[in-house]
Amino acid sequence: MTAIAQTTAAEPTTEAGLEQLLASAHTAAVPLAALRPTDRAELLGVVADALDAAADQLIPLAQQETHLAEARLRGELKRTTFQLRLFGEVLRDGGYLDARIDHADPDWPMGAPRPDLRRLRVPVGPVVVFAASNFPFAFSVAGGDTASALAAGNPVLLKAHSGHPRLSVATADVVTTALHQAGAPRGTFALISGTAAGAAALQDPRVKAGAFTGSIPGGRALFDIANSRPEPIPFFGELGSTNPAFVTPAAAAERCTEIADGFISSFTAGAGQFCTKPGILFVPAASALVESLRSAVLPQAAPLLNTRIQSGYAEVLQNLTSNPRLKVLAQGPGALSDPPAPTLLLTTAEDILAEPHALQTECFGPTAVVVTYDDESLLPALAETFEGQLTATVHATDSCEVAALVEVLARKAGRVVWNQWPTGVSVTYAQHHGGPYPATTAIGSTSVGTAAIERFLRPVAYQGFPQHLLPEALRENNPLAVPQLVNGKRAEQP
Amino acid sequence: MTAIAQTTAAEPTTEAGLEQLLASAHTAAVPLAALRPTDRAELLGVVADALDAAADQLIPLAQQETHLAEARLRGELKRTTFQLRLFGEVLRDGGYLDARIDHADPDWPMGAPRPDLRRLRVPVGPVVVFAASNFPFAFSVAGGDTASALAAGNPVLLKAHSGHPRLSVATADVVTTALHQAGAPRGTFALISGTAAGAAALQDPRVKAGAFTGSIPGGRALFDIANSRPEPIPFFGELGSTNPAFVTPAAAAERCTEIADGFISSFTAGAGQFCTKPGILFVPAASALVESLRSAVLPQAAPLLNTRIQSGYAEVLQNLTSNPRLKVLAQGPGALSDPPAPTLLLTTAEDILAEPHALQTECFGPTAVVVTYDDESLLPALAETFEGQLTATVHATDSCEVAALVEVLARKAGRVVWNQWPTGVSVTYAQHHGGPYPATTAIGSTSVGTAAIERFLRPVAYQGFPQHLLPEALRENNPLAVPQLVNGKRAEQP
Repeated sequence: MTAIAQTTAAEPTTEAGLEQLLASAHTAAVPLAALRPTDRAELLGVVADALDAAADQLIPLAQQETHLAEARLRGELKRTTFQLRLFGEVLRDGGYLDARIDHADPDWPMGAPRPDLRRLRVPVGPVVVFAASNFPFAFSVAGGDTASALAAGNPVLLKAHSGHPRLSVATADVVTTALHQAGAPRGTFALISGTAAGAAALQDPRVKAGAFTGSIPGGRALFDIANSRPEPIPFFGELGSTNPAFVTPAAAAERCTEIADGFISSFTAGAGQFCTKPGILFVPAASALVESLRSAVLPQAAPLLNTRIQSGYAEVLQNLTSNPRLKVLAQGPGALSDPPAPTLLLTTAEDILAEPHALQTECFGPTAVVVTYDDESLLPALAETFEGQLTATVHATDSCEVAALVEVLARKAGRVVWNQWPTGVSVTYAQHHGGPYPATTAIGSTSVGTAAIERFLRPVAYQGFPQHLLPEALRENNPLAVPQLVNGKRAEQP
Repeated sequence: MTAIAQTTAAEPTTEAGLEQLLASAHTAAVPLAALRPTDRAELLGVVADALDAAADQLIPLAQQETHLAEARLRGELKRTTFQLRLFGEVLRDGGYLDARIDHADPDWPMGAPRPDLRRLRVPVGPVVVFAASNFPFAFSVAGGDTASALAAGNPVLLKAHSGHPRLSVATADVVTTALHQAGAPRGTFALISGTAAGAAALQDPRVKAGAFTGSIPGGRALFDIANSRPEPIPFFGELGSTNPAFVTPAAAAERCTEIADGFISSFTAGAGQFCTKPGILFVPAASALVESLRSAVLPQAAPLLNTRIQSGYAEVLQNLTSNPRLKVLAQGPGALSDPPAPTLLLTTAEDILAEPHALQTECFGPTAVVVTYDDESLLPALAETFEGQLTATVHATDSCEVAALVEVLARKAGRVVWNQWPTGVSVTYAQHHGGPYPATTAIGSTSVGTAAIERFLRPVAYQGFPQHLLPEALRENNPLAVPQLVNGKRAEQP
């Protein structure tokens, strides 16, 4: 494994190189789709084991390239391999196939006999995944998009993020070697580098879906490419979010210090470089919470992922502070330096209502805006001013009348959080990491949690087929023991 | 009900009129979404009953405007009201909510405690539905898109098809009156008229999804509008398909007459104006099937839906017959007249391979192409030449080696049919009426069958919420008795 430490960044993928990788992915698609789900689960497990085994080589590279702390990176790698194994569990369960069987019914009340119809979900074909900067493991080479696309049975072309190029090559080597040793079809996974190669791959007719985590302009540009193809393809982009949080007067009175501490810890976690960072906090003007935040000890300056993000952060923060509607509430020394100390800005509900768009700009880094309000009954109207969000948070007490606020937030956001903080997105069965645009480009999809696999599947129905030609999941004797909906009823599993 | 017979076509919806309807739909969205699923099931049932009761007024209007036969139209209306009631059943079942509950777990193996997370699907918001010409009931005002969007809990703005304007107004009156009498929120359903109003509605920020059944150019133009909005929205277009059918030598030898009769009956059903019409039939050159088709008695000429479709049909047919690769195999008298007699064209597998795109053009009307092949082993390669399809059909025997062909067809089409014909799309639990582009613009979705409701829903997760603020479907005591996935396992229903 000494090779890993010597890994160099990949050169931008050439046109000829990309053609070869696309051809391989195209060729791999049929045998990969034909594998039993349980066999694909094995592949994911082998990849997870190989990544765990390479941790001591990968983590130092990640530290060098992202400036993130070792403990955070070890936790992220653990999350990444857990995620691969969890998708293995999804494959072994088989519910993701959504297998449905309708037996022929001459008396079907629609007025014509019902034929024998059987439906399941199949892989869409090769997927291009664009890696993110801020999670060099969990949303990068072997991250959630890759795991779910592979689990679904699709070859993956992974566009490396320029922020951690050597780590990307090293991780891809681990993945490719593990897949090869486990007998996966050649072409199941490949790394590509460079913006041009990523865009070209997305335009190639052999590619059938795209996935992305990153900025609104970058994600929108790729979304537009995917949709302007002669054959448009689905594009699952997770773009931007300010993740508003609302504190009721009762909660502020009851848990002032706890809320102040929790908020500061959440908006500065990972140096504020989480897509679920609570970027705006609504607090009662009359509460002690404003003073608690003003006098709080903010965490020390921490380096951002790279110089591009550092300069982008400083630019957005300068723009915000030059807005007369925003004042500095609290700030460490060197807020615009590298590394930047955290900043809390202050404004009012009236100002948000007057200029929502400018004041709700996502600031990727350790800055958040505190908004004071006088009238609790205005909270639903304030919530209405937001565009689509990944998350929205409410801090209240059980006796608060917040149903109207929660109703608005559930319309605006993919996840609504109660008396907790939105950072730390758990990988679970019920997780939803999505939301209306610009939080994502595909409102019905999630990029975290077991449902993420659904993005890379499409249904196919078989009408009147003999048993031996049906996919195993649709056969009468259910040899894979998958959940089946039979004549509209959930059948007992064998 | 005498009013219906006097119904006149709607004037194009004005800008001011559209604004009012959009505002009403926007206002209706929240209370409609808040209704219990079972209450929305009641609404759908009331609409179905009202349409059945109005059959004797609606059918004659449909006959006048579409030239379709009374029996066909009565069957289609029955299918339409059945569909509304079937979505009621979907709502009562509750499985469509995909309710998931993860209990908090301090030992969750991802490396951090799992919070309590609960997820379900909620309505997306107002939907614009563009009605089709060829199913004046089942894919029009109260058709599948409307039924599934309403079932999901979304207000519907229905863009009437210009081919049956009076029927559209009359049907909309029945729907609107029934919804009003049943207590649905004002603005739950409205009819709009005119191309400009349809496009304007699709661009309005209050509209959250679009659905369409029609031509490739028309659907693509609307798809592009939906995706170029500042906030792009999902657009579910069902566009075009030639629906290839493949007959093996063994099947041709065994069931020559049956296949010839079945094919003729399927491609001329509804005067060939079905999106699932088998437009291309591959037959062994050496079989008697070619002669059977040449000497078959084709059905009599039947009028097409309207003069626009008649002239479009004649134009495409003339283009096809001017192609030297296509000969006329069989034709009734007056193939280009109004009404047109059916036409069967003839070509070879070599010609298809040489010029697939031109020879696979969809011809909406009573024309199909017969393709002779010499070598059965070429069938998978011939299947590969097709773009995305709604359906693909195989006529074979159980001992035929067609696994490779079926594999290709399942990649190309949304539904694969065995020894039957693709027309007559049954409304069931396992139906899939979709497929890769250009069959549809949304590869993961169906416009027929109970899964069609999924198009108009999006997931929302609730983290750490107290029971009383959770949607009923996510509560621990499961008061709606919906299927729940609890900690990754399908729970027993109470």
